[in-house]
Amino acid sequence: MTDTLAVADGLVLTPAFDVVEADVLVDADAGTVIEVGPDLAAAADETLDAAGGLVIPGLVNAHCHAAMTLLRGYADDEPLDTWLREHVWPVEAALTPDDIRAGTELALVELIRSGVTAFADMYFAVEEVAAAVEAAGIRARLGHGVVTVGKDDEAARADLEESFAVAERLDGAADGRVRTAVMPHSLTTVADDLLAETADRARDADVPIHFHLNETPDEVAPIVDEHGVRPSAHADELGLLTDSTFVAHGVHTDPSEFDVLAERGTSVVHCPASNMKLASGMAPVQAMLDAGVPVALGTDGAASNNDLDLFDELRDAAMLGKLAADDAAAVDAETAFRMATAGGAEALGIDAGRIAAGANADLAVVDLDAPHLTPAHDLVSHLVYAVRGSDVRHTVCDGRVVMRDRDVLAFDEAAVRERAQEHAVALVARAEE
Amino acid sequence: MTDTLAVADGLVLTPAFDVVEADVLVDADAGTVIEVGPDLAAAADETLDAAGGLVIPGLVNAHCHAAMTLLRGYADDEPLDTWLREHVWPVEAALTPDDIRAGTELALVELIRSGVTAFADMYFAVEEVAAAVEAAGIRARLGHGVVTVGKDDEAARADLEESFAVAERLDGAADGRVRTAVMPHSLTTVADDLLAETADRARDADVPIHFHLNETPDEVAPIVDEHGVRPSAHADELGLLTDSTFVAHGVHTDPSEFDVLAERGTSVVHCPASNMKLASGMAPVQAMLDAGVPVALGTDGAASNNDLDLFDELRDAAMLGKLAADDAAAVDAETAFRMATAGGAEALGIDAGRIAAGANADLAVVDLDAPHLTPAHDLVSHLVYAVRGSDVRHTVCDGRVVMRDRDVLAFDEAAVRERAQEHAVALVARAEE
Ligand SMILES: [Zn+2]
Ligand SMILES: [Zn+2]
Repeated sequence: MTDTLAVADGLVLTPAFDVVEADVLVDADAGTVIEVGPDLAAAADETLDAAGGLVIPGLVNAHCHAAMTLLRGYADDEPLDTWLREHVWPVEAALTPDDIRAGTELALVELIRSGVTAFADMYFAVEEVAAAVEAAGIRARLGHGVVTVGKDDEAARADLEESFAVAERLDGAADGRVRTAVMPHSLTTVADDLLAETADRARDADVPIHFHLNETPDEVAPIVDEHGVRPSAHADELGLLTDSTFVAHGVHTDPSEFDVLAERGTSVVHCPASNMKLASGMAPVQAMLDAGVPVALGTDGAASNNDLDLFDELRDAAMLGKLAADDAAAVDAETAFRMATAGGAEALGIDAGRIAAGANADLAVVDLDAPHLTPAHDLVSHLVYAVRGSDVRHTVCDGRVVMRDRDVLAFDEAAVRERAQEHAVALVARAEE
Repeated sequence: MTDTLAVADGLVLTPAFDVVEADVLVDADAGTVIEVGPDLAAAADETLDAAGGLVIPGLVNAHCHAAMTLLRGYADDEPLDTWLREHVWPVEAALTPDDIRAGTELALVELIRSGVTAFADMYFAVEEVAAAVEAAGIRARLGHGVVTVGKDDEAARADLEESFAVAERLDGAADGRVRTAVMPHSLTTVADDLLAETADRARDADVPIHFHLNETPDEVAPIVDEHGVRPSAHADELGLLTDSTFVAHGVHTDPSEFDVLAERGTSVVHCPASNMKLASGMAPVQAMLDAGVPVALGTDGAASNNDLDLFDELRDAAMLGKLAADDAAAVDAETAFRMATAGGAEALGIDAGRIAAGANADLAVVDLDAPHLTPAHDLVSHLVYAVRGSDVRHTVCDGRVVMRDRDVLAFDEAAVRERAQEHAVALVARAEE
């Protein structure tokens, strides 16, 4: 007996960006869509009411540091260098695994409430992150962030080994919802020989690589000075760029770098809010897309955002993409929405980002009955320019309901908030001691 | 017998940006705050529950074309020129007063639901706008938008006279909640002699002036070519810049223009979302503030935004202001929030933007019990970077509750949405005929 779920009586966004009246019948055991069509609800074991709503693929947040929710609003409006050295790093040095669990659970509540069904996370104490993801019911590509600058050889080696150990140990956890990657922080915070080793071992172990690339000019100049090539070329020389590699930011990616990213199939995860808040710059999103570079969307950590609502990034990506291109026709609504769905799925190497028979049943239902979504000239436009996370009514991942009528099923939301508040206060007190 | 309202048991944001536990006691008849302090609820005639919430000054949307909600999502992702000439103007030519009423009511619902208690509006059929504002219970500075390019002398003259007639007829309507201004569209769409006449007559009639300034390079070049001075200098030569004048956008305001704006006390209304979506550019907000130019915030019309949630503009202003200044410390949270409150009140020439004894009782209560507003390191940061319009629980204007528990009292929200949808569909059908 198959356990079936029908997302019933709503409108459905098709992979071709048509909007059709249809039910979505889901095999809850297999976690896949059986059929999209009329009148499928009667035969289903369970029904999710999508009347007055639009069923969309679950969003993919392709670059995050989830536990940084604990630092939301802690040290805003500081220059990037001060922010990192005087605020973020001291606090991160004081983090315990329990803190990370508390912050990640808060992030998961927020992600699920805004229709995110998959995310990539670079952080520490990744077992805690994975356990929270397992409980939450969504998907993630997780990794241990490696930083070797300022560490002696032994500590650097230990960090690198932890990255591979985590990637091996946790891959496939939570019934396959948790996948892993090795995550050297960036080209300027990890030593070259260890980056090259990372590339070699990742290829042998068939594990993806995720790192920050071209976020600020400070990440570019040292590479150009030392190696005489742009960061993407240097990363390619080190063997880091493959079609399972995804890099965050790409703000200062020069047109001369587009081809190698496109040829290798390496995805760039655009994080517009973080790039604005830290004054990092404007990524050339439309130009990268035109050159064939796959682009996804991410929130980065909550400390530089300050929330994990990917609908903000959808709007930011479309709007900032126009400014960067000096063209109001750049990064149109469909393009932005693809980045947040199919583009994110491609970056993370998961089968998601579309609602169609056979695809993973990762979806969200967006309430359309709202003043700010009236009139209904163009629902794809609304998804990008007007919908906010709070308009999401239900979230489904892997065929299971993870939020119903804005109630996140896996967690006691009040308890999660209270625990995060306590951990945040204690953490900052320890760090400022 | 005074009719009193107590906004009770919440936190209150003071004009000095402290957050205190206090009740706010309001004289509902006078529309002013009597006192801010502990234990004021027991004696009040009516109580508004602010427990778990933050009481903030009502936001001021200082540049809007409210009825353009009817065009939300109608023609996105087009170059500005195509967008205006092929889409917006043909539709606006087909607008009826009934359309404008329907679109404005939808806008008012949206504004009130996101904590806006005052807005400036440049549009047509201003009687309809004023009637909607009167019903809604909030404040507005309203004007008829004058465009004379492409019109014969008679039509241009009629347009100008309508602007002054509207300003005289409607000023003080709705128990003083409606104020007026004359609103020539811009320096390049109204003839110079009529702009000069506008300035003279506005001074004599003591009526404020509002126009678009330096939105795009196309608004700058013709002025520089013809008059040999930047647009602000030209506007000053015409007599348009006074301390009751407020101008929209100011994107391409050159540093050489800052002094005259600052000296005249003319406010610039920053509209970051519109400037991004139309690829107009980045206004030098921090530089203008540093030079003493008063800056307020606006959404512009919904067609270039696409919503009227001023919390989006708060976030956009802080973020885009950092990019424009290439400095993550620019346009900090307090600065952005001042722009949306006291800055807007100054632009509109109304007494609002702060919660204090004697001030107008224009305020909103923001729910803090939310995952995306946890932890509570810094509530001013949250107001700018994380709060969204949907977090507003109550809105109060002129001492009266206009939204209680997200229910907008003056309107039947479903009926407003339905009417707007019908008008929008019929309007576009007429325009595309
Ligand atoms: Zn990051
Ligand atoms: Zn405007």
